[in-house]
Amino acid sequence: MGYTLTERILRDHLVDGKYEPGSEIGIRIDQTLTQDATGTMAYLQFESMGLEGIATELSVSYVDHNTIQVGFENADDHRYLQSVAERYGIYFSRPGNGICHQVHLERFGRPGKTLLGSDSHTPTGGGLGMIAIGAGGLDVAVAMGGGPYYLTAPKVMEVHLTGELQPWVTPKDVILKVLQILTTKGNIGWVCEYTGDGVAGLTVPDRATITNMGAETGVTTSIFPSDEQTRRFLAAQGRAEHWVPLAPDRDATYDKSIEIDLSELEPLVAAPHSPGNVIPLSRVVGTPVDQVLVGSCTNSSYTDMMTVASMVKGKHLPPNVSFGVAPGSRQVLRMMARSGALDDLIAFGARILESACGFCIGNSMSPGTDAVSIRTSNRNFKGRSGTPSANVYLTSPVVAAAAAIKGEFVDPADLKMEFPRVEMPDRFEIDDSMIIPPKPAAERARVEIFRGPNIGEPPRNTPMPGSIKGIVAIKVEDNITTDHIMPAGSRLKYRSNVPKYSTFVFEPLDPEFSRRAAELRDKGLHNFIVAGVSYGQGSSREHAAMCPMYLGVKAVVAKSIERIHAANLVNFGILPLYFVRESDYDIIEQGMSMTIPDIRNALESGESQVKAIAGDREIPLRMELSRRQREILLAGGLLPYTVRSR
Amino acid sequence: MGYTLTERILRDHLVDGKYEPGSEIGIRIDQTLTQDATGTMAYLQFESMGLEGIATELSVSYVDHNTIQVGFENADDHRYLQSVAERYGIYFSRPGNGICHQVHLERFGRPGKTLLGSDSHTPTGGGLGMIAIGAGGLDVAVAMGGGPYYLTAPKVMEVHLTGELQPWVTPKDVILKVLQILTTKGNIGWVCEYTGDGVAGLTVPDRATITNMGAETGVTTSIFPSDEQTRRFLAAQGRAEHWVPLAPDRDATYDKSIEIDLSELEPLVAAPHSPGNVIPLSRVVGTPVDQVLVGSCTNSSYTDMMTVASMVKGKHLPPNVSFGVAPGSRQVLRMMARSGALDDLIAFGARILESACGFCIGNSMSPGTDAVSIRTSNRNFKGRSGTPSANVYLTSPVVAAAAAIKGEFVDPADLKMEFPRVEMPDRFEIDDSMIIPPKPAAERARVEIFRGPNIGEPPRNTPMPGSIKGIVAIKVEDNITTDHIMPAGSRLKYRSNVPKYSTFVFEPLDPEFSRRAAELRDKGLHNFIVAGVSYGQGSSREHAAMCPMYLGVKAVVAKSIERIHAANLVNFGILPLYFVRESDYDIIEQGMSMTIPDIRNALESGESQVKAIAGDREIPLRMELSRRQREILLAGGLLPYTVRSR
Repeated sequence: MGYTLTERILRDHLVDGKYEPGSEIGIRIDQTLTQDATGTMAYLQFESMGLEGIATELSVSYVDHNTIQVGFENADDHRYLQSVAERYGIYFSRPGNGICHQVHLERFGRPGKTLLGSDSHTPTGGGLGMIAIGAGGLDVAVAMGGGPYYLTAPKVMEVHLTGELQPWVTPKDVILKVLQILTTKGNIGWVCEYTGDGVAGLTVPDRATITNMGAETGVTTSIFPSDEQTRRFLAAQGRAEHWVPLAPDRDATYDKSIEIDLSELEPLVAAPHSPGNVIPLSRVVGTPVDQVLVGSCTNSSYTDMMTVASMVKGKHLPPNVSFGVAPGSRQVLRMMARSGALDDLIAFGARILESACGFCIGNSMSPGTDAVSIRTSNRNFKGRSGTPSANVYLTSPVVAAAAAIKGEFVDPADLKMEFPRVEMPDRFEIDDSMIIPPKPAAERARVEIFRGPNIGEPPRNTPMPGSIKGIVAIKVEDNITTDHIMPAGSRLKYRSNVPKYSTFVFEPLDPEFSRRAAELRDKGLHNFIVAGVSYGQGSSREHAAMCPMYLGVKAVVAKSIERIHAANLVNFGILPLYFVRESDYDIIEQGMSMTIPDIRNALESGESQVKAIAGDREIPLRMELSRRQREILLAGGLLPYTVRSR
Repeated sequence: MGYTLTERILRDHLVDGKYEPGSEIGIRIDQTLTQDATGTMAYLQFESMGLEGIATELSVSYVDHNTIQVGFENADDHRYLQSVAERYGIYFSRPGNGICHQVHLERFGRPGKTLLGSDSHTPTGGGLGMIAIGAGGLDVAVAMGGGPYYLTAPKVMEVHLTGELQPWVTPKDVILKVLQILTTKGNIGWVCEYTGDGVAGLTVPDRATITNMGAETGVTTSIFPSDEQTRRFLAAQGRAEHWVPLAPDRDATYDKSIEIDLSELEPLVAAPHSPGNVIPLSRVVGTPVDQVLVGSCTNSSYTDMMTVASMVKGKHLPPNVSFGVAPGSRQVLRMMARSGALDDLIAFGARILESACGFCIGNSMSPGTDAVSIRTSNRNFKGRSGTPSANVYLTSPVVAAAAAIKGEFVDPADLKMEFPRVEMPDRFEIDDSMIIPPKPAAERARVEIFRGPNIGEPPRNTPMPGSIKGIVAIKVEDNITTDHIMPAGSRLKYRSNVPKYSTFVFEPLDPEFSRRAAELRDKGLHNFIVAGVSYGQGSSREHAAMCPMYLGVKAVVAKSIERIHAANLVNFGILPLYFVRESDYDIIEQGMSMTIPDIRNALESGESQVKAIAGDREIPLRMELSRRQREILLAGGLLPYTVRSR
């Protein structure tokens, strides 16, 4: 029986464990990427491991999140990142050079390689035939140091594409269709592997849109084969030599298969407030829009931008719509400037935003009260835009541009214009002058690392206590995202300062949480978080574990926890526990005393179930932990575990 | 005896008072402008006057300050401003269309007209031969309603220019020279009028750089004649019909005259932390720089941008310098895109920032800790960049570009490149599609004004009490700017919400002030502010009077108070008082009880001196108030005064 492409690449990189779906494996990581919001802490953790340099084939440090820079913190972080890159042999992509995933695809990604990134949209690289996985910064730090990355050997789902996309239907609609089928829940431990005749018609940037937003389903990653399209893209990026053909074995079998006929797809929309809330565009046609934003790591490629520019050319933005465009990279921006497309966009009335994450993370362009905002990005969680009352819809660039032209949702096919078939160029504009390559090894040791006053030591946890005894410091509902746990926006600049950033834990849900939890911690009590389904979805930010740890949280008890977040909890020595009976969730109240007796023994002896005593009730809880994870938890987290085991 | 150009225009607009230097005159205002940070409150005040429409020839509402938009507040304010403009017959320049002064110069300014703007850099219009004055929003609201604008009939200083600027010496160096001569103090009540053979060689944008930054001297405004250069500029903007020739009478006499030989000027720099701290560039050559920013209402014209682009073309930004460019308007941006200059800048490594105030007001691009930042803007007050420890230098665009190329301060003449003589084009790219013109009068009444939840009623003061009795709530040093009194940056978005914004009064100096003052106010006590020399310099923001008023401040006792701020204090019913003996400043301590007995009677009877009882001491204080200002103070501010007197 043959291998899927996923299994082949994973087996090629296997360094620990036995490849069996459901069991933990350790893989070798070829490439890593970080962005500035998660990167500062990742490198602080890397530094604390005491190594001389990186052990990967390639590591790149990007700056794309905190590029607005209000206050000294961001510029200091950028300088720290640049100096630490110089010190350890890491490429540094300067602020303004673009969004990490877009730039990595253009300049660094290689078929068949493994990529670990401290950003949840790292699966973008799957568009190039990589196994590209989002993880916490500490996991990335360990991988940079040459340590294996541990994950559950995934089940592989075939997404079989047939037919051809019709005019005005785009790759964004493919991934929205996948989200409609898979939803944002229940896909933990899977990889989506795209196959079928329909694949050949999709360019690498098209595929990258699909694998990027595949993250919203909760799968470990998504992957496309490496074929003629991959070769064309790499050649156009001046990297033909990086191409290798990759496909699943002919007799590969999949754990599950879904089929999508591209010819039958229609434009889709993710309605507020979830990327999984997918409806046909036709359902919202006629709804007035206040704001349209094109960009983000999902849809900011050359083709995306040129398509939008071509649609709006010669027209004028209606008076009640605000329209912003953020090209994904300096490469894209330069090609737009040279071709005249940038001028067409400005003439239409577009505000040209910096090539960065910007609006997607609520760092700019927050819409007004109750506004309808159409965005080409990948997440529309309530409040993520910076405006809790806003209604954010996710669409393809053509649907967004059509709405900007009309001032309301409209089927672009009804605009009576020809569908602009923008071809991928044979040669992209190549200019890496804003990427600083690694210094020669001999010069690195002399590099002095810059540390601004906002950059603090990464906090470490203490070993797991004999029993966890404390208080349910907060009880939250289903679908709590890492944006709820650790807000971004104006708080993001405190990422390098854990004591300060910790004062904002759960701020959108309960601004008093942080003070309360710190008080309990200071009284010597352990804190519990109790949650519903799909706790910790969204961004990969490890601060959603690190800051609760700092506040004395020792366990999260939930109906389910998303993959990256559960791994982050373990990495910071917080025990993830699952209700055996979901109805027990209802018994627990915030403020209740709770104890998990004898937890060290349970972890050491490999128990898969423990009990919590909450008030006068006994609640059975499941542990889903590998041997390695138990040891990490006993040690108090991955950092003490790694340093000790070296 | 003939008139100066200043006196001629003022006399042409005189509607109240007698034109005598030192006495108060009321003038008719032809044009007004507002920006969003001061505009929301100006229009709220305009609305509360209950008029049907504006009475000026032209009023324009710009959005250029809060264009980052973190949180719903900014977008709501923009929508409010757009709807209020529609309702009252005001032009609305949409976000992204550019900086108010740059756009007003391009599209609206007219020689011989009076312009009142709720921004301290309104004198930019003086480059076109206007009397253009910065004022508080309430003054602008009154002017929009057809009320006169009151000012002290100014003394006029001739700035006689001879010769011609040498290569690498620019109009920015002219105004830096003026600042070196005049300093930022002691120029209240003056207007600078530029004359001499040297004037003819300066284009309108050149002149606008000079009149713009003239604001830093503290003069009421600055003005150039309207000549062939003015005609050329207006023709190139498609507005030849707006030109009229204007010059001082041949036999005009000036109250004072200074002479500058342009041929002898060298590149100058305003060193930290004042625009008046002017030194020769040669003094800092070799100093490494961390950040270079080109833009702001001082230096963001087509010529400025094209000059910088031409200098950096084909080069690469050094690794340790961050370089940002913010074109002043959409017109400039489009012309840069079309000419290829934008691509040259991006290729060099520039981050292209939105056409807005941005970095100049600390709204973005804050430098790192202790960083050296070179900016082409007009203010380098400590902390204004968002980074209190940063050292900000103000220079011309060519000096800034040279530093960006070299990574350190360098004399551009030493770069061994030809001085790029960028000519003003014969025809600018004209595209007003992002300026919404007034609706036909018949349609205006139907416009519904949008008010977001952050938009509150403008607060009103109560009439002046019989005696002021209270506490010295704060004592501050010399040179306190309105940035110290009312911080901008991340606080700016609360401009429309006085109770909220008031919690940040004096935050950079004393974060406890607001709470303390509110407590005293709630106990029925009046608050005093005691200050040194040049209190209230910098931005024209009237919130620096309005928010203290909200906190119960009834009087400011200072060694001297800047013109716009003193007028704002009166407008909000706060009494400005001056020490007769400067040494009395030292007697007063924060927290002291203070009383000004019988102040109503003193105001009514026209006294020019009153006494304060501070502790057991009697302190004589001077009042410098016109009859009208006394009445405003008795009524509790300009709004109650205006509404009552209509």
